[in-house]
Amino acid sequence: MTDVVERLRAALGERVRSDAAARDAHRRDWWVLSELQDLEGRGPAAPRAVVEPGSAHEVGRTLAICREAGVPVVTYGGGSGVCGGIRSEAGDVILSTAGMSGLVDLDDRNLTATFRAGTNGLAAEQEVRRHGLTIGHWPQSIELASVGGLVATRSAGQFSTAYGNVEDLILDLEVVLPDGRLLRTRRTPRASAGPDLRQLFLGSEGTLGVITEVTFSLRPLPEASRGQAFHFPDLEAGLNGVRQLLRDGFRPAVVRLYDAKESGRNFGDACPEGRCFLLLLHVGPEELVAAQIGGVARRCLEAGGAEADAATVDHWLEHRNRVPGFDVFLEKGIILDTIEVASTWEHLLPIHRAAIASLEQVDGILSASAHTSHAYRSGTNLYFTFLARPAERAEMEACYRECWRRVMDATLANGGGIAHHHGIGRVRAGRLAEEIGSVGVDVLRAIKRALDPDGLLNPGALLPGSDG
Amino acid sequence: MTDVVERLRAALGERVRSDAAARDAHRRDWWVLSELQDLEGRGPAAPRAVVEPGSAHEVGRTLAICREAGVPVVTYGGGSGVCGGIRSEAGDVILSTAGMSGLVDLDDRNLTATFRAGTNGLAAEQEVRRHGLTIGHWPQSIELASVGGLVATRSAGQFSTAYGNVEDLILDLEVVLPDGRLLRTRRTPRASAGPDLRQLFLGSEGTLGVITEVTFSLRPLPEASRGQAFHFPDLEAGLNGVRQLLRDGFRPAVVRLYDAKESGRNFGDACPEGRCFLLLLHVGPEELVAAQIGGVARRCLEAGGAEADAATVDHWLEHRNRVPGFDVFLEKGIILDTIEVASTWEHLLPIHRAAIASLEQVDGILSASAHTSHAYRSGTNLYFTFLARPAERAEMEACYRECWRRVMDATLANGGGIAHHHGIGRVRAGRLAEEIGSVGVDVLRAIKRALDPDGLLNPGALLPGSDG
Repeated sequence: MTDVVERLRAALGERVRSDAAARDAHRRDWWVLSELQDLEGRGPAAPRAVVEPGSAHEVGRTLAICREAGVPVVTYGGGSGVCGGIRSEAGDVILSTAGMSGLVDLDDRNLTATFRAGTNGLAAEQEVRRHGLTIGHWPQSIELASVGGLVATRSAGQFSTAYGNVEDLILDLEVVLPDGRLLRTRRTPRASAGPDLRQLFLGSEGTLGVITEVTFSLRPLPEASRGQAFHFPDLEAGLNGVRQLLRDGFRPAVVRLYDAKESGRNFGDACPEGRCFLLLLHVGPEELVAAQIGGVARRCLEAGGAEADAATVDHWLEHRNRVPGFDVFLEKGIILDTIEVASTWEHLLPIHRAAIASLEQVDGILSASAHTSHAYRSGTNLYFTFLARPAERAEMEACYRECWRRVMDATLANGGGIAHHHGIGRVRAGRLAEEIGSVGVDVLRAIKRALDPDGLLNPGALLPGSDG
Repeated sequence: MTDVVERLRAALGERVRSDAAARDAHRRDWWVLSELQDLEGRGPAAPRAVVEPGSAHEVGRTLAICREAGVPVVTYGGGSGVCGGIRSEAGDVILSTAGMSGLVDLDDRNLTATFRAGTNGLAAEQEVRRHGLTIGHWPQSIELASVGGLVATRSAGQFSTAYGNVEDLILDLEVVLPDGRLLRTRRTPRASAGPDLRQLFLGSEGTLGVITEVTFSLRPLPEASRGQAFHFPDLEAGLNGVRQLLRDGFRPAVVRLYDAKESGRNFGDACPEGRCFLLLLHVGPEELVAAQIGGVARRCLEAGGAEADAATVDHWLEHRNRVPGFDVFLEKGIILDTIEVASTWEHLLPIHRAAIASLEQVDGILSASAHTSHAYRSGTNLYFTFLARPAERAEMEACYRECWRRVMDATLANGGGIAHHHGIGRVRAGRLAEEIGSVGVDVLRAIKRALDPDGLLNPGALLPGSDG
C-alpha cells in the first residue's frame, strides 16, 4: 500500500505539495488562539500535504484517494476565518481551493456572475465592477477570503442591512460531495422544489462537501451613496432609533451603532463623550436615497439622537478594513478577540450589559466594548471586542477561554444567539448544543453521517466533540 | 397486537377520528387530478383514521405509535395544496394540524408572532392586524392554508417582491421529528451556526417532520399603499420594464405582468387589445412610496410602457382571491390547471413562447396563457394557466398529463426551473431529478433516510418513485 501523498501525486502531479513551506502555511486560519499557540511553539501540526486541485474533477479525485486511505481532508479557502475552522492535524490533507480561481461567466442582463470557489473576494468584486456591477458583499475579510469560504462560513457583509447576507446574494452553487459526486443547484431566482440544497453548504464549514463554484445575483453600482450620522444619549436610545427606522421599512446599507466606549475611541471628534454614535450609509437610486435620508433623520431625532458630521462615514469607508494584526498584541502579552452574537430587540441591552460586566471581572481585562453592525426588523447583532493582559503570559489561553465563556454565558442566559456571522469553527463548537439544542446537533450529525459516512471532511470543526 | 387505531385512541382519545366523514374529508388536497378522479369515482382511498393532536407532545405520540406499527403518516394542514402533496392510501393515518391552532405569543417591539401550525393563514394575519402589524404573506390560498403548510410548501405571497417569500418571513420553527423528538430553532434575527435547520423543513412537504409552531418576523401595517399600472406593446417590453426597475433597486410589493391574452381577459377596460398589462402596488413609508412611484414610472415609460388606470389595482386587490372551483369546469369535461415555473431574465420569453406554442398543439386545448407575479433581481416566475376539453371525457387525465409534460419540457429545454412556489407534491415528483439533478435527489433521499429511516412520513410526495 503506497502512501496517500504518493497516490495523490500520481493522480494530480504538481498540484500536490509536501514541502515544508506549503505545509506550514496551511496549518491554520486566523483564529487568535492558534496564532498564540504558534507564538508559544505549540501551534497546530503541519498537514501531510497540501493539494490544490484545478477542477471539480480533481477535487473528486482528491477526496476519493483520501477516503480510500481514511485520511481527513480540510478545505482551505482564503484562510481568513477567525474561529479555528481550519486547524490541521499531522495526518490531514489540506485541500486548498487556490487552484480554482477566476470568473466563469458574467451576464449583465441576468445580473449573474459565477466564480470558481478559490477566487479572492475582493478580486471578484473588482471583476464585476469593471462591468458597472457589484456583489455588494463586504465582510471585513474581503481582501483575504475566497468566495467559497464566504459561502461555507455563512458570512455577513458590511452592507448587509440593505443587501442581505451571503445567503441572500447567491443564486446557485456547485459542490463536490464527500463521495466525489458533483451537485449543481439550479440557476433560478427562486424555487419550491423540496428543501433548498444550497442551505446545506451555507455554514457547513467544510464538513459536508467542497464548494467549487459560486454564482452571485448582482446589483448595478448604486446611482447614489450618501452617509449620515447621529449620536444618542445612550445605547438604549440608539437601539430604539435603529429599531424604529428598520420597523418603518427603511433599509440603509450600513447601520452601525457603537456603545459609548467605542464611540469615544473611534469617533471622538464627531461624538460628544459618553454618547453613542450611529453611522449610516444609504445606497440606491437618487430619489430613494433622498427620501430615506429624510425619513431616517426624523426617526433618529425622535429617538433622542442629534445629527453628527456625515464626513465620518467617508472616513470609516476608507479605513474600515485596516485593522492591526493580532501579533502586535500577543507579543506584548495581550490576548484579544471579537465575538459576534445576535438577538431580538428586547434582549440586546441585557446581553450587552451582562457581557460587558462579566468581561470586566476578568483578571487583567483592559477593555470590553461592543457595537452593532447588522440590523433586521426583529433585532440586530452585537459585536464585542475584548483585550486582556493576564499577570502571566502562561495564562493567556486560559484568560481567552474565560472571556469567550463569559460572553457566551451572558448571551445565552439573556436569550441571544451565540454566532451571528463568524461561524462556529472550534471556538464555539462546545456551545453549539446550547444554540440549536441537542436535537439540532443530532440532526446535523445525522446529515453529516448521511453525506460523509467516514467523517472525512474537516472532522474537528463545527460539531461538538472536537478539540474546541 | 391491537390495531393501530385502537392504540392511537388509547393514547389520544377523541382526537382520533375514524368516522367516514372525517376520513373522506382528509383523503386529498386541491390537486385537480385528485378531484377529477374523485368525480370519476376512482379518487384516493380514505385513510385508516384522522388524528388531530392538540400538542407537539401528542404529535410525538402519534408518530411513535404509527412508527411501531409501520403505518405511514400524512400531515394535513389546510388541504389547499394544488400538487397532490396530500393523497392518502387506504392504510395511512392522516395527522391533521387542526387541533393545534391559535396565537402563542406576539411581541410588538421584536415584531414577532408565534402561531401553532394549524392556525389558518388569514386568521393569523387578522390576529396581528389587531395590533397594527402584518405578516405580509398573501398566497392566494390564504383563506384555506395553515401557517405550517405555508412553511412546509415553501409558499410565496402576492406581496413577495417587497416582502419576500415565506423563507424570508419566518424567524423560528418548532418541529416534531419522525422519531418524536422536538426540534426548536433559535429565535435570533440571523445566525451562522452551521447549516440553517429551518431550511430542511421549508419545502419538505411533510416528508421530514411535523411543523408544530411557526414564528414570523412581522412588519407594521404600511403607512402608504398605492397602486400603479402600465401597458406595454408586448411581453418583451414589459419584461424589460420590470427587469429595469428591479435592477435599479425599486421593490414594489406587487409586480404582475400579464401576457396579451391574460391582459385582455382580465384588464380589457384598462388595457388596449394586444398589449401587456403591468399591475404594481407600492407599500411603505409615504416618502419612499412617492419616490418609488416616480422612479418606476420613468423606467416603465423608457421601456415603452404607457400609464394605465391605477384603479385597476384596487379592483384586483379586492377580487384577487375569488377564483372558481375546478368542479364547475370538470363537470363540463374541461380539464385545467396552473403551472408556475421560474427563470433568469434571458430564458423567460423563450420559455413563454415554447410552452404556449406546445400547449396550443394539445388536442382540445381551449386556452393557454401566462403572467409573472414574483420578481427578483435576476429573473421572475411565469405562471401558466391552461384549459382543455378533450373529445372524450375519458381522455381528461391523459390530456392533463400531456399539458403538464409540455410545460415542464418547454421550461427545462429553455433553462428554467420547474417549480416556483406550489411545490413538488406528486404532479412534479417525476421531474424533480431534472430540476435538482439525480445527485440532488440522492442528497434529499439520504437526508430523508437519516431523519425518517422507516420512510414513515408522507411517503408518496416530493421524492420521485412515488405514484406521480
